[in-house]
Amino acid sequence: MKKIINNPSNVVSEMVSGLVRSYPQYLEQIPGTEAVVRSNKASMTGKVGIVSGGGSGHEPSHAGFVGQGMLTAAVCGQVFTSPTPNQVYEAIKAANQGQGVFLVIKNYSGDVMNFDMAKDMAEMDDIPVKSIIVDDDIAVENSLYTQGKRGVAGTVLMHKIVGAAADQGASLEEIAALAEKVLPHINTIGVALKAATVPEVGKPGFELADDEIEYGVGIHSEPGYRRETIKPSKDLVAEMLAKIDASLNLKSDKKYAVLVNGMGATPLMEQYIFSNDVLNWLENKNIVPVFTKVGNYMTSIDMAGISLTVFELAETKWLDYLNYEVDTIAW
Amino acid sequence: MKKIINNPSNVVSEMVSGLVRSYPQYLEQIPGTEAVVRSNKASMTGKVGIVSGGGSGHEPSHAGFVGQGMLTAAVCGQVFTSPTPNQVYEAIKAANQGQGVFLVIKNYSGDVMNFDMAKDMAEMDDIPVKSIIVDDDIAVENSLYTQGKRGVAGTVLMHKIVGAAADQGASLEEIAALAEKVLPHINTIGVALKAATVPEVGKPGFELADDEIEYGVGIHSEPGYRRETIKPSKDLVAEMLAKIDASLNLKSDKKYAVLVNGMGATPLMEQYIFSNDVLNWLENKNIVPVFTKVGNYMTSIDMAGISLTVFELAETKWLDYLNYEVDTIAW
Repeated sequence: MKKIINNPSNVVSEMVSGLVRSYPQYLEQIPGTEAVVRSNKASMTGKVGIVSGGGSGHEPSHAGFVGQGMLTAAVCGQVFTSPTPNQVYEAIKAANQGQGVFLVIKNYSGDVMNFDMAKDMAEMDDIPVKSIIVDDDIAVENSLYTQGKRGVAGTVLMHKIVGAAADQGASLEEIAALAEKVLPHINTIGVALKAATVPEVGKPGFELADDEIEYGVGIHSEPGYRRETIKPSKDLVAEMLAKIDASLNLKSDKKYAVLVNGMGATPLMEQYIFSNDVLNWLENKNIVPVFTKVGNYMTSIDMAGISLTVFELAETKWLDYLNYEVDTIAW
Repeated sequence: MKKIINNPSNVVSEMVSGLVRSYPQYLEQIPGTEAVVRSNKASMTGKVGIVSGGGSGHEPSHAGFVGQGMLTAAVCGQVFTSPTPNQVYEAIKAANQGQGVFLVIKNYSGDVMNFDMAKDMAEMDDIPVKSIIVDDDIAVENSLYTQGKRGVAGTVLMHKIVGAAADQGASLEEIAALAEKVLPHINTIGVALKAATVPEVGKPGFELADDEIEYGVGIHSEPGYRRETIKPSKDLVAEMLAKIDASLNLKSDKKYAVLVNGMGATPLMEQYIFSNDVLNWLENKNIVPVFTKVGNYMTSIDMAGISLTVFELAETKWLDYLNYEVDTIAW
């Protein structure tokens, strides 16, 4: 393992320290935790708080999306490990401005359990809390750490949607209803060329041959559904979009947003080429996405690979939320 | 070589296509070229045009910095290869609004020659052109493709400075004088863990052992100044900042901006840890940077490694330029 770190046991605390010190205009560390909250307190006043997080290793998720128009606070667990209920509880308290707090949880058993316990703790303090469990990864049903589908890069779009609604003054009930309505319209699928190396483990989560890829891998190296020799980008796109099409039923008279997400070690050059092939495939169906974003948003440490998210914009307002002004490090 | 591409010979044209189609609100392709210009024409009116570019493989540089407050146009050469004079000339013409055009050129012999020829072509059309040759890499004197020092990640800070000045209405002469004044205050040094693989070459530019790093490597795999076994992040920082200190003479009564730049395959986790160590080292000298930025800005395809840029803000206005509002894909 060759990494720019000091001690594998301290990566999260040093990372959070580096992050808040590099960006004090955006982030403050919540005392006694590895959670962060917006520095811009004025932007929080009178608004529902939006809290997300989970294991670290997905940077810029989730702390990079803390800021006006998106998350209010984010919790950074150990690498690929759920944050403790207490850390989430502290983030809820820091985010609450009297209008309650909405939790965006990726569908991993540990996260679901710990965020739920934190919710109970907050409710004992009379803080109203609602939540959504994001399960946008259509690659496989059930997985190493998940009952049902996994939550992956589409979570970032959920952050953007509920963050914009909260900034516009939506109530906790309205945000919860919005999130439930949006969720099934967000579908993601990924492909891996090289697995991530967790610093404390010191070797990749799985091994692929020099010319081999795996479809449907999760963001914690969970198994996908097929391994084969790498194909041209356009063939990867065809396989991935066929799966999404089977799920979302893509139509030329509907509107779509597209998120192409690098897994951490995938150069932007490859991401743009892949995006070009995605846009070609959709164009053949007479679909031109109304919103496209390409870059590293929900990574898996140093995994090489890419994920594709398609979000069917069933309501015009959802596109407005995606385009709504935002002030974060990483959106 | 395992990459998400179609044909190694077409990576640049497909990449540029993917980029402009993904971000039509920012970029338009200049017909007949692989150069891009702002879509927002209104933002260009009455302003000096700022043009940069060079070989591809450094994404998001340079096209990702095209937008109001930063570059007006960017030229995408073949991978690690200077764009032709004609491509640069077309970008100059597209960027010119009657106030002339300023070129930001990284110090590589091919770029210097081809941008200079383009400048001559534009001047024959009565387009006033001035330029700066950025040579911020203090690691080595002369290099594989360079007389003098190389131009690396500090170039992005130069883009930001001259882009902000242009947006505020500075004249071509004022911008040229500003760039000359700023240049010696920007110092960069890098370290590589793994070399980049150019798609048409198919193997890494050099080989490092499993536990080996190289200090001072360039962004096209040019040799650095020493190889050794990898050390903790804080030791890398100490070596790199000692070199920068020897050049800039860092003092607690001066103001500094810091740019920590990932080379393409380096996770943000490592970049934030490295940043934490940079801030610790500076704090021991009673220096707290007034501006910090961390992420992938001037990459080397899939190189693993990091560079550190320190920019001494000798004038208050320079910090204002760094903080000046900007509307690009990647700043």
